[in-house]
Amino acid sequence: MNVLIIGSNGQIGQHVVRKIQDSNEHNAIAMVRKKEQMAQFEEQGAKTVLVDLEGSIDDIAGAAKSADAVVFTAGSGGHTGADKTMMIDLDGAIKSMEAAKQAGVKRFVIVSAIGVHHRDKWMSNAPYYSAAKYYADVWLEKSGLDYTIIRPGGLVNDPGTGKVKVAVDLERGQIPREDVASAIVASLDDVHTIGKAFDMIGGETPIEEALKTL
Amino acid sequence: MNVLIIGSNGQIGQHVVRKIQDSNEHNAIAMVRKKEQMAQFEEQGAKTVLVDLEGSIDDIAGAAKSADAVVFTAGSGGHTGADKTMMIDLDGAIKSMEAAKQAGVKRFVIVSAIGVHHRDKWMSNAPYYSAAKYYADVWLEKSGLDYTIIRPGGLVNDPGTGKVKVAVDLERGQIPREDVASAIVASLDDVHTIGKAFDMIGGETPIEEALKTL
Repeated sequence: MNVLIIGSNGQIGQHVVRKIQDSNEHNAIAMVRKKEQMAQFEEQGAKTVLVDLEGSIDDIAGAAKSADAVVFTAGSGGHTGADKTMMIDLDGAIKSMEAAKQAGVKRFVIVSAIGVHHRDKWMSNAPYYSAAKYYADVWLEKSGLDYTIIRPGGLVNDPGTGKVKVAVDLERGQIPREDVASAIVASLDDVHTIGKAFDMIGGETPIEEALKTL
Repeated sequence: MNVLIIGSNGQIGQHVVRKIQDSNEHNAIAMVRKKEQMAQFEEQGAKTVLVDLEGSIDDIAGAAKSADAVVFTAGSGGHTGADKTMMIDLDGAIKSMEAAKQAGVKRFVIVSAIGVHHRDKWMSNAPYYSAAKYYADVWLEKSGLDYTIIRPGGLVNDPGTGKVKVAVDLERGQIPREDVASAIVASLDDVHTIGKAFDMIGGETPIEEALKTL
């Protein structure tokens, strides 16, 4: 499977590209915003495309045209304002969905955030962030795409354990970004995750096995 | 018709309440955020409800329960950041739609902004604002409500002329906020505007007549 990763240079995205390149089944197409971000992925043998997520749907669709699946793991990050949250986490995500449809790609995996499907769990210090993730998720659910919505939290940079807990609703915990990346890649192979949206934290169950309990 | 106006204290909202109270057919229910905003509407004989648009859908539905129509003309305004744009112009609008449905109110009129249905017309200095308005409009179109989406621009504070130009697509012009309010009130009486979304600028055609050309 050729997999376009939108947000390749992000903290989860870098793990996703590497895990895909390490797999025998998939090939990564790393979408990056800046030219200087390309080399690291090319060194891994990944195809790399230079496309600005704040650009046109056509540009993103162009990047998706040789893909069999799209992974959306871009985020505006902690150092930007709510304007970028709107344009990346919400509008960028929705443009990516529209681009996938335009390019004829059915499979779409998105990284959301734990609990955003419940307003009373929205981040009190940044409800706009939860709102952006929530509305992107709802759009995806109604998009007609073969979606998987992974809602991890809270993200940490510890090495992955390969073990998680998944369910529609979970109390906030901790999960290594590397395990989120593993769950994304495992989802690509697991048709059982199509049409599913779930919270994910660190746990005791091997990722592939956990996904089958959904 | 009892009409809940969400954003009564706004520049368009104040005109809407007054025009509804001046009409013989309708009664205004002015929704306001602050207690000190109530008196001006009560003096006009309008029913007034104190509800924070950043609160719960249930609270808004409570305000809507005796209404036959909802007008959404709230806006975060020019003095707040993109976080408020997300929470008022997008999330507040969508919560109001969900509240209308919950309260059994079918008719919903929203004030959007000219051209937001075309990405290439989004405000270059504030694309997040255009995005918020666009996604609120799309949600309304898919809501099942009897909607009217009025997209005026650019707004000015000149006295109303009672004359406008309307079409799905128009070049940006100027339109007094008072005329936008008149078009909202006229839409309430005009079943022909149900399911319509249109740009509006100042023009030569009396408002009620212009709406019938849609």
